[in-house]
Amino acid sequence: MEVGGSFRYYLAELIDQSTLDTRARIVEAARTLFFAKGYNATGIAEILREAGANSGSLYYFFPTKEDLLRAVLEQYKQMLEPFVLSPAFERVADPIERIFAILDGYRRLMEATGFDLGCPIGNISLEVANVKPQLRGLLAENFSAWREAVESLIREAAGRLPAGTDPRSLAWQILATMEGAVLLARAYRSFEPFDAAVDALRSQFDQLLERGSTWGTPDI
Amino acid sequence: MEVGGSFRYYLAELIDQSTLDTRARIVEAARTLFFAKGYNATGIAEILREAGANSGSLYYFFPTKEDLLRAVLEQYKQMLEPFVLSPAFERVADPIERIFAILDGYRRLMEATGFDLGCPIGNISLEVANVKPQLRGLLAENFSAWREAVESLIREAAGRLPAGTDPRSLAWQILATMEGAVLLARAYRSFEPFDAAVDALRSQFDQLLERGSTWGTPDI
Repeated sequence: MEVGGSFRYYLAELIDQSTLDTRARIVEAARTLFFAKGYNATGIAEILREAGANSGSLYYFFPTKEDLLRAVLEQYKQMLEPFVLSPAFERVADPIERIFAILDGYRRLMEATGFDLGCPIGNISLEVANVKPQLRGLLAENFSAWREAVESLIREAAGRLPAGTDPRSLAWQILATMEGAVLLARAYRSFEPFDAAVDALRSQFDQLLERGSTWGTPDI
Repeated sequence: MEVGGSFRYYLAELIDQSTLDTRARIVEAARTLFFAKGYNATGIAEILREAGANSGSLYYFFPTKEDLLRAVLEQYKQMLEPFVLSPAFERVADPIERIFAILDGYRRLMEATGFDLGCPIGNISLEVANVKPQLRGLLAENFSAWREAVESLIREAAGRLPAGTDPRSLAWQILATMEGAVLLARAYRSFEPFDAAVDALRSQFDQLLERGSTWGTPDI
């Protein structure tokens, strides 16, 4: 055990920058392929081709395909802020508008890719949640980070919402609506389900804001 | 063409009841396995074992795995009324309560199966919408039938909802919320996301009903 540990440490010291780059290239290739084609439908050979890596490197870093999926899910956690939240936050300052800007980001992604890409975590989740229970924690961490970001925005706007509004439930509903709306839009290859669901969510917020401003003192 | 047509007709006459049963058994076995494990992860051998059929029968009825998926999706269209709507409608009469009873049906299914089963159409959709564009029509027919049922219930309750409520958008939002909430509950193996999203939807309806009854004359 001790010897194995030292040996691994020694090996780690030998890893030069190009090796680290190889690991990053493999993760990025897998992430892109899992996103576009799904986890099960992606073959190891494709990942190696896309990453420009050999199977030795792959198995060195990721003894199993599941280890690679784990690294991809860790990578997505790092991507929430720069790829999902920041672009939306740069466009608008109002916290409620920021929620709709986040939703609009998924619309833009579907538009740019002809509906080929939606929410990567939603996809992976439906594909592996039953068969890989050990990955549920990482999936949940990704969803929870998204929900917490939206919940924070709702809390920022709390003074304008009616008393009794539950930011956490509302944030779950928004996450559920986003996941479902993206799923439906991709199935239909049409923005109708997505736009309709977002319109209804907009009406819901319009009502909350109307009641919040005239019907009492918010207590959240 | 003519000869082929006659020949097929002749063959059809030769099919006895046990052969028809075989077809039904294959579809039912495939439906159950696709639901539990996913379309891609289900092997032909499992379907044959589960159906108690041989590969000759399988290929006779379904030359490709995709033909079998198509039959499964047709089957689901037939199942909406008896398996999703009727059980909910038997429990409550109020149209809005019926919507929540439909949603509760998915909760019961997840509870009964330890979160292994959710919405079969949502699953299949995420799995095949990108790679099998030819199946999108059938997926959309399934989703649309569900959305239309909920839209009808909203229209039944229209007199109690505020003027300007759009039943179609609201029905899309409810379908999206259901799909997303089921996806999240299954990923977390917890009812928290599902119950929270449904609670928020309930608050949304409470507000609509409150406004509808006091704030003006509905025009839908």
